[in-house]
Amino acid sequence: SHSINLAVIPGDGIGQEVVAQGLKILSAVLPQDVKLETEEYDFGAKRYHATGETLTDADLDSLKKHDAILLGAIGDPSVPSGVLERGFLLKLRFAFDHHVNLRPSKLLPGVATPLAGQPEIDFVVVREGTEGPYTGNGGTIRKGTPHEVATEVSVNTAFGVERVVRDAFARAQARPRKKLTLVHKNNVLTFAGHLWTNIFNRVAQEFPEVTTDYLHVDAATIFLVTDPARFDVIVTDNLFGDIITDLAAAVSGGIGVAASGNINPSGEFPSMFEPVHGSAPDIAGQGKADPTATVLSVALLLRHLGYETEAARVEEAVAADLTERGDAVRTTDEIGDALAARVAS
Amino acid sequence: SHSINLAVIPGDGIGQEVVAQGLKILSAVLPQDVKLETEEYDFGAKRYHATGETLTDADLDSLKKHDAILLGAIGDPSVPSGVLERGFLLKLRFAFDHHVNLRPSKLLPGVATPLAGQPEIDFVVVREGTEGPYTGNGGTIRKGTPHEVATEVSVNTAFGVERVVRDAFARAQARPRKKLTLVHKNNVLTFAGHLWTNIFNRVAQEFPEVTTDYLHVDAATIFLVTDPARFDVIVTDNLFGDIITDLAAAVSGGIGVAASGNINPSGEFPSMFEPVHGSAPDIAGQGKADPTATVLSVALLLRHLGYETEAARVEEAVAADLTERGDAVRTTDEIGDALAARVAS
Ligand SMILES: CC(C)[C@H](C(=O)O)[C@@H](O)C(=O)O
Ligand SMILES: CC(C)[C@H](C(=O)O)[C@@H](O)C(=O)O
Repeated sequence: SHSINLAVIPGDGIGQEVVAQGLKILSAVLPQDVKLETEEYDFGAKRYHATGETLTDADLDSLKKHDAILLGAIGDPSVPSGVLERGFLLKLRFAFDHHVNLRPSKLLPGVATPLAGQPEIDFVVVREGTEGPYTGNGGTIRKGTPHEVATEVSVNTAFGVERVVRDAFARAQARPRKKLTLVHKNNVLTFAGHLWTNIFNRVAQEFPEVTTDYLHVDAATIFLVTDPARFDVIVTDNLFGDIITDLAAAVSGGIGVAASGNINPSGEFPSMFEPVHGSAPDIAGQGKADPTATVLSVALLLRHLGYETEAARVEEAVAADLTERGDAVRTTDEIGDALAARVAS
Repeated sequence: SHSINLAVIPGDGIGQEVVAQGLKILSAVLPQDVKLETEEYDFGAKRYHATGETLTDADLDSLKKHDAILLGAIGDPSVPSGVLERGFLLKLRFAFDHHVNLRPSKLLPGVATPLAGQPEIDFVVVREGTEGPYTGNGGTIRKGTPHEVATEVSVNTAFGVERVVRDAFARAQARPRKKLTLVHKNNVLTFAGHLWTNIFNRVAQEFPEVTTDYLHVDAATIFLVTDPARFDVIVTDNLFGDIITDLAAAVSGGIGVAASGNINPSGEFPSMFEPVHGSAPDIAGQGKADPTATVLSVALLLRHLGYETEAARVEEAVAADLTERGDAVRTTDEIGDALAARVAS
């Protein structure tokens, strides 16, 4: 259809500022005959303080009607740790079965990296999004006493692992290098590790062109700083994916340029796109936030909705902007304007 | 007492070579009136293949009689993943209640790092060693079927968390900067996360001179590459500690120089000292292994047994050797000889 019905969740802190730029670029890049409708939602700390709500069933029903969701960032120090993360972010990922958490890392020429020697970095992490240690399984007994016991249960199913592994193989197959690395800790977490490894090895037989590789998560962090060029596609569990994608962002241009998609490949529920960074309350409202990660998330959103040409145009605009930006300090708005001008031309 | 009764476990791969150098330096540095007795144990892949055994009750009884244990590396591709890790390494850590897993990271002048700009790195990670996701709790149902479910249970107790947090505060208190960072993921793993955070905050009140800090594990990996100078002492859970100490090793001179101690502070059981690296079967027997990590583990061993002067001498020898080594390629033996000469003089 020639319209996009988008749910917009600016959220907390810098979320407002970066989402505004994301929408600016989205409007600028879309063909004139595509109608962009947006509906803004007020989730986050403010609503939580006002109503005690994080994400209600009615909210989910309403969000469900959109083609996709663009999220800024959720989280504020005034809210106890875990309340918005579990009550909003993870609740939404689970409710909409966002099992493919897609996080590309590409170091562009001229972009600063903490690594010496400007290595080649161009890989994508496919992080499982609905299982592992993120399910909220577990509990606490004898809370607050010297005999407290707290457990966290990582839940892994053949169903959940196989679908994300298949998705990763298909992505690897479609890339020039066709290489897929499984990251886990199967020598210690042997129950989950063997499930992941066995399914990975079985599915590999259906993709004979894809070269496969296995790394323990600890070793993967070493290679991410000593030899990031070795990675093409990585598939991993929810927690390991959380950890290595922050590290991947750090080495490939910083958290200011790291995009992500929370994807429901079947299309049963809308997918959600968001920068990897958080709400950064310390710099909120000052025009200091880099909207690039949000703009790159808009590119992922466009690709997901079938606007491949437009997605590529946004990515090219960002690449050109990053490569040419030099040392100039620009405001959030200035970066957004520069990118909007590039995609429109 | 003026004797050290040491259990020596060379293990697999390069373990043999590096342990030989460790013992060379230990003999060279000890005062003449200290009697060094060593007993070698044959744990690892060879014994497993010959007998099916990894670590028996009789082995544990025998190991228990020593003052300390020096381990090279355990692991070989001929043994299924997990068998030696769970059946030997983790079994020993749990049996001897090695709850303080000590991993210092110090980048010496002139030593190569993948990070640009030779940052200042001098911190120590206190990793919990007997709980968390490492307990082996969990299981598998419907194995090998499309309905398989595999779980891993992270077990965290007030007892286990408090003792390691106290140990870390005491270490921070004894260092010039007096700073302690808790690393966890308390916004997602809320049961375990709140236990860790609450105990950390409570114990902090007893150490008013120690500055405290909290980072999610994903954010910690970012700072380890963008601002490692911010860390002094880190305390964290078993799995997060595994991951960040490999990354810490990578940025501070590489896995070839990363030492560790598996410490039982009460002295009820002997503590074990080992390089962080593995058995590296691809380079085993070729004299290519860097014994520095093992030698630095010997320094931790000496300090643990009360030989502070000797520990410092070993560390100074390593620092001088690393700083002065230049680009020369040296064999395992040559590095060991150079270090032995330095500590003896
Ligand atoms: C905020 C938190 C729930 C989230 C996660 O751990 O998934 C974040 O770190 C991320 O990576 O998107
Ligand atoms: C080999 C493995 C059991 C071990 C661990 O995960 O603790 C290793 O990675 C380490 O860090 O000592």
